[in-house]
Amino acid sequence: MKQAPRLTLNIDRFFDPNPAVRRLARLLYNSVRNLPIVSPHGHVDPNIFVENIAFPNPTELFLIPDHYIFRMLYSQGIPMESLGIPPLHGSPTENDARKIWKAFGDHYYLFRGTPTGAWLDHEFSVVFGIKKRFTGATAMEIYEHISEKLQSPKFRPRALFERFNIEVLTTTDAATDTLASHQELRASGWKGNVVPCFRPDSVTNLKTKKWMQNIQLLGARVGKEITSYRSLIEALENRRAFFKTMGAVSTDHGVESPYTRELPHAEAEAIFQRALRGVSTVRDAELFTAHMLMEMARMSIEDGLVMQIHPGSDRNHNQMILEKYGTDKGSDIPLQTEFTRNLKELLNKYGNDPRLTVIVFTLDETTYARELAPLAGHYPAMKLGPAWWFYDSIEGMKRYRSMVTETAGIYNTVGFNDDTRAFVSIPARHDLSRRVDSNYLAGLVARHIVGLDEAKEMIHDLAYGLVKKAYKL
Amino acid sequence: MKQAPRLTLNIDRFFDPNPAVRRLARLLYNSVRNLPIVSPHGHVDPNIFVENIAFPNPTELFLIPDHYIFRMLYSQGIPMESLGIPPLHGSPTENDARKIWKAFGDHYYLFRGTPTGAWLDHEFSVVFGIKKRFTGATAMEIYEHISEKLQSPKFRPRALFERFNIEVLTTTDAATDTLASHQELRASGWKGNVVPCFRPDSVTNLKTKKWMQNIQLLGARVGKEITSYRSLIEALENRRAFFKTMGAVSTDHGVESPYTRELPHAEAEAIFQRALRGVSTVRDAELFTAHMLMEMARMSIEDGLVMQIHPGSDRNHNQMILEKYGTDKGSDIPLQTEFTRNLKELLNKYGNDPRLTVIVFTLDETTYARELAPLAGHYPAMKLGPAWWFYDSIEGMKRYRSMVTETAGIYNTVGFNDDTRAFVSIPARHDLSRRVDSNYLAGLVARHIVGLDEAKEMIHDLAYGLVKKAYKL
Amino acid sequence: MKQAPRLTLNIDRFFDPNPAVRRLARLLYNSVRNLPIVSPHGHVDPNIFVENIAFPNPTELFLIPDHYIFRMLYSQGIPMESLGIPPLHGSPTENDARKIWKAFGDHYYLFRGTPTGAWLDHEFSVVFGIKKRFTGATAMEIYEHISEKLQSPKFRPRALFERFNIEVLTTTDAATDTLASHQELRASGWKGNVVPCFRPDSVTNLKTKKWMQNIQLLGARVGKEITSYRSLIEALENRRAFFKTMGAVSTDHGVESPYTRELPHAEAEAIFQRALRGVSTVRDAELFTAHMLMEMARMSIEDGLVMQIHPGSDRNHNQMILEKYGTDKGSDIPLQTEFTRNLKELLNKYGNDPRLTVIVFTLDETTYARELAPLAGHYPAMKLGPAWWFYDSIEGMKRYRSMVTETAGIYNTVGFNDDTRAFVSIPARHDLSRRVDSNYLAGLVARHIVGLDEAKEMIHDLAYGLVKKAYKL
Repeated sequence: MKQAPRLTLNIDRFFDPNPAVRRLARLLYNSVRNLPIVSPHGHVDPNIFVENIAFPNPTELFLIPDHYIFRMLYSQGIPMESLGIPPLHGSPTENDARKIWKAFGDHYYLFRGTPTGAWLDHEFSVVFGIKKRFTGATAMEIYEHISEKLQSPKFRPRALFERFNIEVLTTTDAATDTLASHQELRASGWKGNVVPCFRPDSVTNLKTKKWMQNIQLLGARVGKEITSYRSLIEALENRRAFFKTMGAVSTDHGVESPYTRELPHAEAEAIFQRALRGVSTVRDAELFTAHMLMEMARMSIEDGLVMQIHPGSDRNHNQMILEKYGTDKGSDIPLQTEFTRNLKELLNKYGNDPRLTVIVFTLDETTYARELAPLAGHYPAMKLGPAWWFYDSIEGMKRYRSMVTETAGIYNTVGFNDDTRAFVSIPARHDLSRRVDSNYLAGLVARHIVGLDEAKEMIHDLAYGLVKKAYKL
Repeated sequence: MKQAPRLTLNIDRFFDPNPAVRRLARLLYNSVRNLPIVSPHGHVDPNIFVENIAFPNPTELFLIPDHYIFRMLYSQGIPMESLGIPPLHGSPTENDARKIWKAFGDHYYLFRGTPTGAWLDHEFSVVFGIKKRFTGATAMEIYEHISEKLQSPKFRPRALFERFNIEVLTTTDAATDTLASHQELRASGWKGNVVPCFRPDSVTNLKTKKWMQNIQLLGARVGKEITSYRSLIEALENRRAFFKTMGAVSTDHGVESPYTRELPHAEAEAIFQRALRGVSTVRDAELFTAHMLMEMARMSIEDGLVMQIHPGSDRNHNQMILEKYGTDKGSDIPLQTEFTRNLKELLNKYGNDPRLTVIVFTLDETTYARELAPLAGHYPAMKLGPAWWFYDSIEGMKRYRSMVTETAGIYNTVGFNDDTRAFVSIPARHDLSRRVDSNYLAGLVARHIVGLDEAKEMIHDLAYGLVKKAYKL
Repeated sequence: MKQAPRLTLNIDRFFDPNPAVRRLARLLYNSVRNLPIVSPHGHVDPNIFVENIAFPNPTELFLIPDHYIFRMLYSQGIPMESLGIPPLHGSPTENDARKIWKAFGDHYYLFRGTPTGAWLDHEFSVVFGIKKRFTGATAMEIYEHISEKLQSPKFRPRALFERFNIEVLTTTDAATDTLASHQELRASGWKGNVVPCFRPDSVTNLKTKKWMQNIQLLGARVGKEITSYRSLIEALENRRAFFKTMGAVSTDHGVESPYTRELPHAEAEAIFQRALRGVSTVRDAELFTAHMLMEMARMSIEDGLVMQIHPGSDRNHNQMILEKYGTDKGSDIPLQTEFTRNLKELLNKYGNDPRLTVIVFTLDETTYARELAPLAGHYPAMKLGPAWWFYDSIEGMKRYRSMVTETAGIYNTVGFNDDTRAFVSIPARHDLSRRVDSNYLAGLVARHIVGLDEAKEMIHDLAYGLVKKAYKL
């Protein structure tokens, strides 16, 4: 085996190779690279900051929780069980973390040209000070290096949070969550600002597995059995108020379609009663979700919580993987999504109201220029979320800026979301976003579309200003 | 307040920063920059050339008629009434033009990176000789500067038309229009070539508000009451002939869907009778529009008028804005559009006929490479309109060329349309288009895809030759 | 007439004009430019290698078989009959090959900026040694030049095959084909590796014209009349086995929609019986095709043939052209295509099976990032075919890499397919693909996304390694 190549992060990485653009991109990037991170949407478990214990090992830190990683390995024929992904029903799985890590190193070349590769290189280099590129040959050396670091107090969750310069981190929490971790965190005296986000999908989506149990749990949380649509609404309002007391500034709605439609009270009640009896139909569920989005917008106008709509994923496309390993295992596949007609009822009723902020995301980038930028460029209440999920990438962000800005400007967008489950990837993701935005603006300056003074204001807004404003932080 | 930045238009604006590409782009652009403007599709009021009086003030010249501008301001929470947009029913509105202009200046940063910003800077600098960038701080000084200019004879509509070097300007006119302005203009002896375009939507779309009145008016125009489908057809043929005598070379059809379908005469008549009785259905209206597109193609073959189809806008998405301010107020939102199947019947019946030219536009750029370029690259009658509306922009045009040229070439496209309501923006829009096309061709030359001699012919065709040929001017 | 411009192929053609990128692109391209050509999917007639006689003349070599060419000429109003395209029913057609060639030369400017133009320039220059650019003025001189070459033994099909350095060439063959040409070729002792591909559309698509005759012919081929669904399945299995003995490694399925659905045996049988009686419905045909894709996947798991799905073309959109000239005459128009839901049943049943390789192509590039890359980036059995048909072009490939790589990597793609009917265009098409991929990777290196050492491995895989692996060659 020849000598392992060095892992180096070029200071101009991701910038256009044109020297004039690159110089401008570097200048703009340097003006924001050290700004605090605002992470208003993600899936980090708040309990890691309560416990604040060392991460067990590199495999459990990087690979197991990150479906961006194991989906790619699985696509190339590496069985899930050999990657240590825990099966639901106790079938055998690899539990030698080192062996899994070696397989990861052997196949790390699969991530060439992917954002996952870019993030991991950043994490290895910047967070852990690794100097060799990750391959099968270097895997075990890197494993030991990271393992040693993880034992140090500097690599405990709270220490990393502070080192990452995170100003605020939002978690995503079910409507039925006690927010016990958030309560403990507040009680602990630690200064890190970690806030919840109210996500009621498991009770508003009648097709959710265990929906009935979720409804019962929700009733338990508010101390009142939910036997009617009206009591559901009251419970949700009650929970939103509680989330607000715990620092929440936003709600999140992961719907398959962004269809919105207000139902007469009697119809909503009838559907809800059918659901309680276990006889609701697919159409019932569609209508109920569409109606609940209307209700959530109404509540947002009343309580000020920023509403986020994340539509368009066919969750758990691979039934075998779902049954064997559960949700969030890399087989959520995007669907074509329609916004102009689907959001019409919500935007007509609430979109002119300045008290509402509704942030819309998409997994269907054909809607950026056709539907979302024209909508966000008109309705005062609507803002456009950043390039999301599969589009949270260098080329994905470039297409987003190219397709959105000319119609909606940058001021109808909301900065960056990392949306990550992998805590250690947060600085890598924000760094990549700041670089790509800097490079985009550098291109505008080099083509004399905006002045450098304007670009400096714009990069500050994209990296920091817009997210703070949109999420009322 | 620090000194206001200078407003300068770089001679290489919008060109690629690569020096080789830029040099070629400049060379190509310089070969066409002074060519006359042919504007075959737009919404300038012909009466301004009849009256030829001074524009009242900057606010009424730039902002009030231009929904590209006020939609962006509205999206950021600035109420329509504070922008002086006249409400339909006499509710209060701001009428201090200076105060509105100041708000515009305060928020001009919203247009950074948008074509509206690029056009306005061109208008300020080239048309009005303004030397400071437009901001809240400079707004009033710029207001006075423009106001003074507007009083000068050089800034009257006809003088500007001549200064802009407009060879022909097409207006858009209802089928029921008397074309009185066009008649007066012809009678005036002024040399400016302003011609009408026949747009029958208000009588062919059964869902049009006031459709019945429009039908009655159409009957009045041709001196024969319209009581049957046959008399409608005769009236339309009659009006087309009249438009031709007034210089018209084209028709325009703003349909929601490009669905085409020929109905048996009896069915068309039956639908029309239902419509006259006020009992036509949504499906009736769809079928009737689909059928009328077929009839319009037939008439175009007979009378030689070039047919334009502009589908895919969900007009007046925001019901409150429609009711309070009327149409064309910035809330027309694009819809996904299908062409392969929808245009099949029309293209099968008439698309092989060399007497027909049907120019198709889209607000759904996903159809450029998938449907429109393959269709235009096969059917002799079909040509592809330029990047339109939200895509009339630097990046929009780049995507258009990238997605269209390889399949349809440039010779199945028709040059540039400005489609503007804002007369003073015409030279800015054509200049931007010439720059972006020059830059596109420079990229082909620099990558050795075409020779410079070929690119010189191509830029002349894109800027001038193709539009003249396509619209038979 | 001024002197004809020289035809030269710049050594850096199609590369980015940025000097750093260009240098890297050239370096990467030079490392693969001389690799053998693997052409796993195309439409070259195998009989040309059996007969191995001289191509008759330039017109019949270049224009007549290539609907990429005559569709563009037709779109500009040049009648098919004047291009010598043979009509089905003996109506008059031009048969002066020189006159047709002259018309081609007169209109060659139409291909500026198209891949067809790039391929033809390559063929003229590299294959035939022509030194002048093709125009009306040079057309006849070039005609004579090529004609003379064609008479030489060096320009016979087998000699060109060898000169082109083709390692393996796959043809496309109906399920009912005797493969007589392939048998003769094998018997001839010639070393050229030409293998068939099993394409059963004409018997699995109930809407195929002459379907009944095809079924009878299929029965004749296997020596057993096909009177039931079960006997159809047996016949198909029998033919696949035969194709394998003739070297086939793959099957191909040209479906309108990629809809997959397994029918109960009784339902499949019932539909098949209705089809035999001539009374099957459109819905029957859709279901049967959907079911046959399931069966083909099952057979592929059993016999190891790689399965290719090519959906999304509305074949023979122009009915007049179909009736007068037959199929494959340039009026196949793409349709919007959906994969997430349509492939769900197939991928759920077979997509986790490592024995299956299913390669999916699209004419709807909006699905690259939204559906196909996420699917290929998860399911072990699924790979993504290259940019296809109208997207087999410089910009088409750039968009493909931009939209696919970040989610699926390059290792879930399968290298290049030329899919050509024009044998002489094969080296031109592979050269263009290698150049565009080299340039893509050069951009990644220049932006420090991958290292040069990684890019060198990647370009080898894209040009040669991936196609060999995916097609098990």
